[in-house]
Amino acid sequence: MKILVVSAHPEPKSFNTAMRDEGIATLREAGHEVVLSDLYAMDFDPVARASDFQERSDGNYLNYALEQRRNMENGTLSPDIKDELEKVLECDMLLLNFPVFWFSVPAIMKGWIDRVFVSGKMYGGRRFYDRGGLRGKKALVAVTIGSRQHMFGEDAIHGPFGEMFRHLLQGTLHYVGFDVLPPYIAWHVPYISHEERGDILRSYRRYLQSIDQLRPIEFPSLNDFDELLRPVQPTPVAIMETPAD
Amino acid sequence: MKILVVSAHPEPKSFNTAMRDEGIATLREAGHEVVLSDLYAMDFDPVARASDFQERSDGNYLNYALEQRRNMENGTLSPDIKDELEKVLECDMLLLNFPVFWFSVPAIMKGWIDRVFVSGKMYGGRRFYDRGGLRGKKALVAVTIGSRQHMFGEDAIHGPFGEMFRHLLQGTLHYVGFDVLPPYIAWHVPYISHEERGDILRSYRRYLQSIDQLRPIEFPSLNDFDELLRPVQPTPVAIMETPAD
Repeated sequence: MKILVVSAHPEPKSFNTAMRDEGIATLREAGHEVVLSDLYAMDFDPVARASDFQERSDGNYLNYALEQRRNMENGTLSPDIKDELEKVLECDMLLLNFPVFWFSVPAIMKGWIDRVFVSGKMYGGRRFYDRGGLRGKKALVAVTIGSRQHMFGEDAIHGPFGEMFRHLLQGTLHYVGFDVLPPYIAWHVPYISHEERGDILRSYRRYLQSIDQLRPIEFPSLNDFDELLRPVQPTPVAIMETPAD
Repeated sequence: MKILVVSAHPEPKSFNTAMRDEGIATLREAGHEVVLSDLYAMDFDPVARASDFQERSDGNYLNYALEQRRNMENGTLSPDIKDELEKVLECDMLLLNFPVFWFSVPAIMKGWIDRVFVSGKMYGGRRFYDRGGLRGKKALVAVTIGSRQHMFGEDAIHGPFGEMFRHLLQGTLHYVGFDVLPPYIAWHVPYISHEERGDILRSYRRYLQSIDQLRPIEFPSLNDFDELLRPVQPTPVAIMETPAD
């Protein structure tokens, strides 16, 4: 596979960065082609703004999604967006590697999403979820987090992990069509020992060696919703009449 | 009340901005004192980085949360963070006004959270949720969104609104202790008529006139969890023995 790794940690010597590099080495050893976007090293600008567009449909009023569509079609997105967009379109798998900030991605990565996941090409109208523009590609989230594992779950203090991160796993990655693999979560990282961190690196390595076997998370299918995206009522089962005998 | 409005729309002529201004006017008419942080107008830098700190505990390794605690205590956070932090600490209510980007806040607002919600002062250890540093203050989220209302709910295509936005409502605002009021949501905004937009402004005005009566969203209480934040087992009810007679 061609794999795009996007990472966002402000400290190059962090464990999060070590995990990213262990991941890249593992994937390359398995024969995959890996491209890295290290957003801090690139000094990536995360703010969606007018200068993202070299042409404007309306120079007096910025409709960001509309200008994304027009500038995508005309090849006039700003060069930094164009570069990242090309990497996303060419990859078979996107791997987001980041430290959890507020149960989500750091701002620099949120802005990479805001600016690079362009309307029109990646989604639009009823082209989202299992009809999203990037369907057929995989996505994987690999994070370090301060919480302990027992802090997520049905009766846990933060509730299920999938609900706290639904905006990212379903609302962002699956929205544009990715098959989203189960996230790799390195728990309680700021508080654990050097040995435990070594264990995590080994477990992450094994995880990535098995990605071909991982089944994507299940999400709603647009097939179960009508043209206004209301749930389709289940078709009543025809009552089988006993043939008169 | 002292109310801090934080807004984040790249187009000053947008409906989102009109809603913000209608909100500010309504709150002022009701006698509240309103301060505005318009993040785009301020060109707020959303990226958490080493230069956020004028002093460092460790100049060779950036532990962001640790430096937040030290620099908060010593008054050495960068001036832009200090200004915003002071506004948050002085307010009785925080109102976040933004267009939904990827079922969350735009990157410029995510970075305002990443940089201003400092560790130590606002949260830390077991000081979060109903024990968070900002308990006693209210928070309100007011958004414009492309979705229709029927696209959120138990059987709806995106699931319940509270789950898609749990990272923000519970995981961010309530995490630091805010009582989070039910969000005001302006539905389907890019697709509706001028008249419908007028209806929304009037309904938002009525909503803000009633904020004193709104009950905060209910979230888990730390009282129901032990010192490792595991759910406390319910105390078994003593079996009442029937007195022998």
